[in-house]
Amino acid sequence: MSGSEATYDVVVLGAGSTGENVADVVVRRGLSACVVESALVGGECSYWACMPSKALLRPGQAIDDAKAVGGARQAVTGELDVAAVFARRDEFTHNWNDESQVSWLDGAKIALYRGRGALAGVRKVVVEADDGTTTLTARHAVVVATGSAPLVPPIPGLAEAKPWTAHDATSAKSAPRRLTILGGGVVGVEMATAYGFLGSEHVTLVEGGERVLAKYEPFVSDAVADSLTARGVEIRTGVKAIGVERPDAGGGVTLILDDGSRVASDELLVAVGRRAGTDEIGLDSVGLEPGRYIEVDDTMLATKVPGGWLYAAGDVNGRALLTHQGKYQARACGEAIAARASGKPLDDAAWGRSVATADHAAVPQVVFTTPEVAAVGLTEAQARDAGMSVRAVEYAIGNVAGAAVYADGYEGGAKMVLDTDRNVVVGVTLVGPAVGEMIHAATVMVVGEVPVDRLWHAVPSYPTISELWLRLLETLGR
Amino acid sequence: MSGSEATYDVVVLGAGSTGENVADVVVRRGLSACVVESALVGGECSYWACMPSKALLRPGQAIDDAKAVGGARQAVTGELDVAAVFARRDEFTHNWNDESQVSWLDGAKIALYRGRGALAGVRKVVVEADDGTTTLTARHAVVVATGSAPLVPPIPGLAEAKPWTAHDATSAKSAPRRLTILGGGVVGVEMATAYGFLGSEHVTLVEGGERVLAKYEPFVSDAVADSLTARGVEIRTGVKAIGVERPDAGGGVTLILDDGSRVASDELLVAVGRRAGTDEIGLDSVGLEPGRYIEVDDTMLATKVPGGWLYAAGDVNGRALLTHQGKYQARACGEAIAARASGKPLDDAAWGRSVATADHAAVPQVVFTTPEVAAVGLTEAQARDAGMSVRAVEYAIGNVAGAAVYADGYEGGAKMVLDTDRNVVVGVTLVGPAVGEMIHAATVMVVGEVPVDRLWHAVPSYPTISELWLRLLETLGR
Repeated sequence: MSGSEATYDVVVLGAGSTGENVADVVVRRGLSACVVESALVGGECSYWACMPSKALLRPGQAIDDAKAVGGARQAVTGELDVAAVFARRDEFTHNWNDESQVSWLDGAKIALYRGRGALAGVRKVVVEADDGTTTLTARHAVVVATGSAPLVPPIPGLAEAKPWTAHDATSAKSAPRRLTILGGGVVGVEMATAYGFLGSEHVTLVEGGERVLAKYEPFVSDAVADSLTARGVEIRTGVKAIGVERPDAGGGVTLILDDGSRVASDELLVAVGRRAGTDEIGLDSVGLEPGRYIEVDDTMLATKVPGGWLYAAGDVNGRALLTHQGKYQARACGEAIAARASGKPLDDAAWGRSVATADHAAVPQVVFTTPEVAAVGLTEAQARDAGMSVRAVEYAIGNVAGAAVYADGYEGGAKMVLDTDRNVVVGVTLVGPAVGEMIHAATVMVVGEVPVDRLWHAVPSYPTISELWLRLLETLGR
Repeated sequence: MSGSEATYDVVVLGAGSTGENVADVVVRRGLSACVVESALVGGECSYWACMPSKALLRPGQAIDDAKAVGGARQAVTGELDVAAVFARRDEFTHNWNDESQVSWLDGAKIALYRGRGALAGVRKVVVEADDGTTTLTARHAVVVATGSAPLVPPIPGLAEAKPWTAHDATSAKSAPRRLTILGGGVVGVEMATAYGFLGSEHVTLVEGGERVLAKYEPFVSDAVADSLTARGVEIRTGVKAIGVERPDAGGGVTLILDDGSRVASDELLVAVGRRAGTDEIGLDSVGLEPGRYIEVDDTMLATKVPGGWLYAAGDVNGRALLTHQGKYQARACGEAIAARASGKPLDDAAWGRSVATADHAAVPQVVFTTPEVAAVGLTEAQARDAGMSVRAVEYAIGNVAGAAVYADGYEGGAKMVLDTDRNVVVGVTLVGPAVGEMIHAATVMVVGEVPVDRLWHAVPSYPTISELWLRLLETLGR
């Protein structure tokens, strides 16, 4: 068995979007870098999460949008072409081929090691591949960017039933006739929406808590649940799964609930959360516990490993499990590594270029359900828990002229949360058609800490749905 | 003939959206107010501009959006229901009945005088109505908010041909088979788009200048012109109209151009601009010239009338002929009047509540063509003319993952203009599907003067089209 060696300034474990971005930043700053990847270069988001899920959702959404407008509705006399939707999804995932991403690495002068990588003590990573073992040494930093994986909870019979995870739901080639979804978080509600579009005759969503999308403002949960119900999805909240039966592999599957009921379906999707992708990456060799998220500071430096050489960026640090936030952390992390490597001062005050300050209270997320959900920053409850002097205002988006033009009977809601001591917006939540592209305005308000007095001068164009921003200020009063 | 009299703190000439808003603000601040209106309460925007034009455009747009997505496209097997579109437009204009707006005035405790109002010297307005004359006296302020009207230029035969103006184009009950549009500004390109949707077989757009939408960045003009051309609109630029012939009222109309060619059609829409709505409102009684825009300072106080009692807000001051900007001016104007009336200090430093600072360099506008256009602030040329140290970056929006998901082969462009001395964004222009709701983020950047270093922390959600904002920063470099 061969045993080659190589040395880089920076070794990155994991070539998802976060790993790629860290490597790109440090290379641009004059360091050498390699990435180690055991699966596809590009990671979860490209192949089994954001991209394929949105590709499955968008066509049904576009039809719904047209049907919502008098005059256009009459033109939609046919049905969604489900085969075409799956085929289009396959284009977005490049049929799960990472050639184009590998080309990008080449162009960015980032070396690629395919194989299972694991830490092997200080500044060492060992890569096991079919053709041998490579020991990589990092002069300055090792960055763990191995992401997260779907969590399959220890429910009797569940693992044996080989349920779908987000991987399977986003890469399926057809819709199961009956689909049960365990978990009412983002993946659960998005996939309930998607498979409703794609022809599943019966979709049941089981959520152990009181409401779907529980981390959002309650009016969001209500709007999404009402819409799913109206589309025929059966939502069961406040019941917990206690067992799963699947007598024949590939045959029907039955979910047993703690109220004694049973839900039979053709497929079961488990969407109850994620776990850190740190099981088998040698964390014990550096004194960390495998399977746990890696604690980091705002430069993504691991706080419990001495020597200042180990970083963890993206899902793997547990700060904010979102592609865009991982890439954001990657930029901060890359700048921090480059600054430290060159002995330059670190720009690590709040909002500096070496820190991911926004992780704490300015994380945006869009849920591509029908209606869409978009939020950034703190909910009202979170702001109060943080001890702020809070004022919150709400507005029914359907009252905005632009919303009424956009869709007949537009239904949507908005909430803006303010810190009255600083007179700034600290959080916004929107639900309704087409709100996904509206939230970035709020992100700029929150991150920019733009005083409310100044926001009165940010005039929305009439008649866009964005006139909402004026309505919220008017509701707040001057 | 009766001759009644009444006195209010504030008399507002014109009950369009600007007039309504001025009156509302001063009443909320404890003053009494009335509005004078000769046509419909609610004004141009509600009945003959923004609302009906967008109502005519949205259904065709929604169909185009669905057709742009593989899988959804196959469901659009029917045609736009043109009669339904006109009927829906009629709902938005309440069939040109202003009852609901009058109710709103009542609720807001604003008195209404219907009739032709005109200034009659200092703090006096005379209202001529069928049932008599009323002389209104303003204790504190008269606000002229009579807007603007379509300009019909002195081309031989044009007035006699009784062409369509924006009024007719937005209130028509059917589409002419052949439509000629004179003028390639916002009204021209929007109505070319609308009547293309609504079944006009041949639309010809004549623009005397070199390009349509000439006040925007050139790439916008190209994108909109290319799209209109692809939809069958014949665009003729660089030719001027020198005559119009319409032998029979209501029959065919021929536009004669300065290159000797003639364009025959069933209807001719004149959309070459607006003129101040100040012809017959008694400006001469206060020393101003009828027919001209009224010059004002940032509180909307007329600068050429002594005594500090005459204001002009909205289109009539010529600062920014847009509904939303008129309402914005109305808020500033109302606050200024209320502060001066009470002897309180005026909040009139830049960005104060009594001044319309954004008029100068932070005006947003959305053009509802296909593709949409959205812009705020300065173009690159305007920023250079203003003597700024300018950097501009461009990005092809179709390269954003969210755009590719939104529409197959998404085509769009973005330009961000920065003042490098202050390190802030001073202008953004977007063209492409669904950009209309994206521009408010830029408005907040420009108005909030958020430093570019901070904008790096405003993370767009993946995969939305808004990821564009990150791409623009990356193009700019760090």
